[in-house]
Amino acid sequence: MIADLPPGLTARHLMDEDHLPVLAVLDRWWGGLKGQAGSTERALLLPRLYFDHFTTTSFVVERDGEIAAFLIGFLSQTEPGTAYVHFAGVDPALHGQGVGRALYQAFFAIAQSYGRHHVRCVTSPENSSSQAFHVRLGFTASAVKPDYDGPGLDRVTFSIELPVDAVAVPPAERYLGS
Amino acid sequence: MIADLPPGLTARHLMDEDHLPVLAVLDRWWGGLKGQAGSTERALLLPRLYFDHFTTTSFVVERDGEIAAFLIGFLSQTEPGTAYVHFAGVDPALHGQGVGRALYQAFFAIAQSYGRHHVRCVTSPENSSSQAFHVRLGFTASAVKPDYDGPGLDRVTFSIELPVDAVAVPPAERYLGS
Repeated sequence: MIADLPPGLTARHLMDEDHLPVLAVLDRWWGGLKGQAGSTERALLLPRLYFDHFTTTSFVVERDGEIAAFLIGFLSQTEPGTAYVHFAGVDPALHGQGVGRALYQAFFAIAQSYGRHHVRCVTSPENSSSQAFHVRLGFTASAVKPDYDGPGLDRVTFSIELPVDAVAVPPAERYLGS
Repeated sequence: MIADLPPGLTARHLMDEDHLPVLAVLDRWWGGLKGQAGSTERALLLPRLYFDHFTTTSFVVERDGEIAAFLIGFLSQTEPGTAYVHFAGVDPALHGQGVGRALYQAFFAIAQSYGRHHVRCVTSPENSSSQAFHVRLGFTASAVKPDYDGPGLDRVTFSIELPVDAVAVPPAERYLGS
């Protein structure tokens, strides 16, 4: 499902049962980091609905049955050519091994299989490592957008154009309409 | 677009530009209410992505150009027959006039037009008026589910079965797959 993962790591689609474990690993990975939201804020950003309704475009990477990384994304209902990455994280102990890149590449592939050639996401201005990661992947970054996600919730937005797959644009596209 | 609204109220689909105004009216409507989340928590529950990517199944009701009510929902990507209401609110000054019911009926109609006959939503256990509203609409309530949306974020879940429209199940259904 996901190419180029380091040895010992396996990938699968997200499941409902991953909700509390994902929130728990975020507390461990990011709990003490400056500029990161707290535990409740992360839970509000990741309500269970993502683990019920967007599993087919979301992934979990495991090592020895433990969550090592994840990516939660969806196909835009409103923008026919767009897919969106809502939240992604990699165990800090695995940084620098290409796990995040492999997750994004897997998301790009599934987006393209649905005829989506434009991918968007956002990050907080304080999260410079996330910004650098997205630029290395080929995303274009915006300037900081004040109050983008609400009062005091400034964001940097990212977008990337994927090659259009000339072969297979599935009937999926007809999902949208108005 | 929405039938049975009181005089002076008009409805339209949600737009990107509604994001900060919706967060602002929530502060006015619910800012001082016990058991309601604070301003930042509401913003985290309603990031801008809903106002970009799920507008076609979401509505705003206006009175004199001001937001009087809204409903933000989407079609489940994972469950082919399901639509989900993420967040809805009505100006307390308009309670008891059927505005919330009209919004839900409009959402049911659009869900059915996409072949969705099962609608789900959640509310917090403290929000007894929301629970009573959903039961009056015909939803079935669950018992309180501890930690449903994360540690300490208990929820009551609601579901309703809509009549299956035997005439028009659009190609939309083919959107899903895995």
